[in-house]
Amino acid sequence: MSALGKLMNALQILPGVGPKTAQRMTFYLLQKNRPGAEKLAEILKQACETIRQCDRCRTLTENRLCRICASSDRDESLLCVVESPAELMQIEQATGFNGKYFVLHGRLSPLDGMGPAELGFHQLVDIMSRENTRELIIATNATIEGETTARYLAQMAAGVGIKTTRLAHGVPLGGELEYTDANTLAHAFSHREPVE
Amino acid sequence: MSALGKLMNALQILPGVGPKTAQRMTFYLLQKNRPGAEKLAEILKQACETIRQCDRCRTLTENRLCRICASSDRDESLLCVVESPAELMQIEQATGFNGKYFVLHGRLSPLDGMGPAELGFHQLVDIMSRENTRELIIATNATIEGETTARYLAQMAAGVGIKTTRLAHGVPLGGELEYTDANTLAHAFSHREPVE
Repeated sequence: MSALGKLMNALQILPGVGPKTAQRMTFYLLQKNRPGAEKLAEILKQACETIRQCDRCRTLTENRLCRICASSDRDESLLCVVESPAELMQIEQATGFNGKYFVLHGRLSPLDGMGPAELGFHQLVDIMSRENTRELIIATNATIEGETTARYLAQMAAGVGIKTTRLAHGVPLGGELEYTDANTLAHAFSHREPVE
Repeated sequence: MSALGKLMNALQILPGVGPKTAQRMTFYLLQKNRPGAEKLAEILKQACETIRQCDRCRTLTENRLCRICASSDRDESLLCVVESPAELMQIEQATGFNGKYFVLHGRLSPLDGMGPAELGFHQLVDIMSRENTRELIIATNATIEGETTARYLAQMAAGVGIKTTRLAHGVPLGGELEYTDANTLAHAFSHREPVE
């Protein structure tokens, strides 16, 4: 296969990129932005070589400890559990959360071979006992498997006497009731809050 | 900046990729498909190093001559002029054309510094005189600049006694008249063809 064809194929591993987009990217990189393409190749190679899981929270980082775990400014008494590094980043950008994190890299799903060992539960228990955790904030996704994982984590935390909280569920801000799905609406209705 | 952040930035040079898509791609590459990511980095690096313009037709290739120019099975008497390698590939895939090509890498646009020299017109004249060209098929885009380029090329070809043809313009196959733009429809109407 030609070098051009190989590059078009290789680009198709990217999520959301089909043959037509890969072709467009290939010609853009080689005709319009070769310095950018060379830089991208180099950065991607380096990322593959250096990026690993943080020893403490398991998010992705090129160091032994990630920026958040290495920081002394974060409140160690708050521990937020997320399913993936992307969700950690999303919470970090959207909220003013100043505690620490733990990344499961998945959710409980025995059929997919995701059990407590794969999700690092014993490492999480270690952290909770070593660091002075007061509150475990469970930010798994609101799917059935995410909920199961949350319940399991809550029991684990209760076992060592740590308070557990969940993200609030309900109607999204700016959302119109007419277009809110039935489950969310029913949940929001039965968990209605007093107006202060 | 972290290696993760650098990769997210570097991916944003790709056409159609913004911050959110770049983040999704980054996590996909590093978490789900690291062998694919390593291979992509390597192939992209090689492509940048080896891919250049074909000595004869100026399309992109890693060899001195592209596959089509190097082939002895193609009809040298037919010469198709396109604006870009992507369009060459599109014609190659969609039509049964068995002649040769010439790639302009642009269109006449003096304000952008694209003149006859940049588009390789003298190389094109060389080819027409050296190879036994009978027909010059002009497949520039149906834009104002593409049309200007086509007219210029047609005059050049007439000067050396070569017949010139253009791609047919009209209503796209499968297109509904209601949604065809006014210019195309007016052109198709005034150039209506006899039913055979």
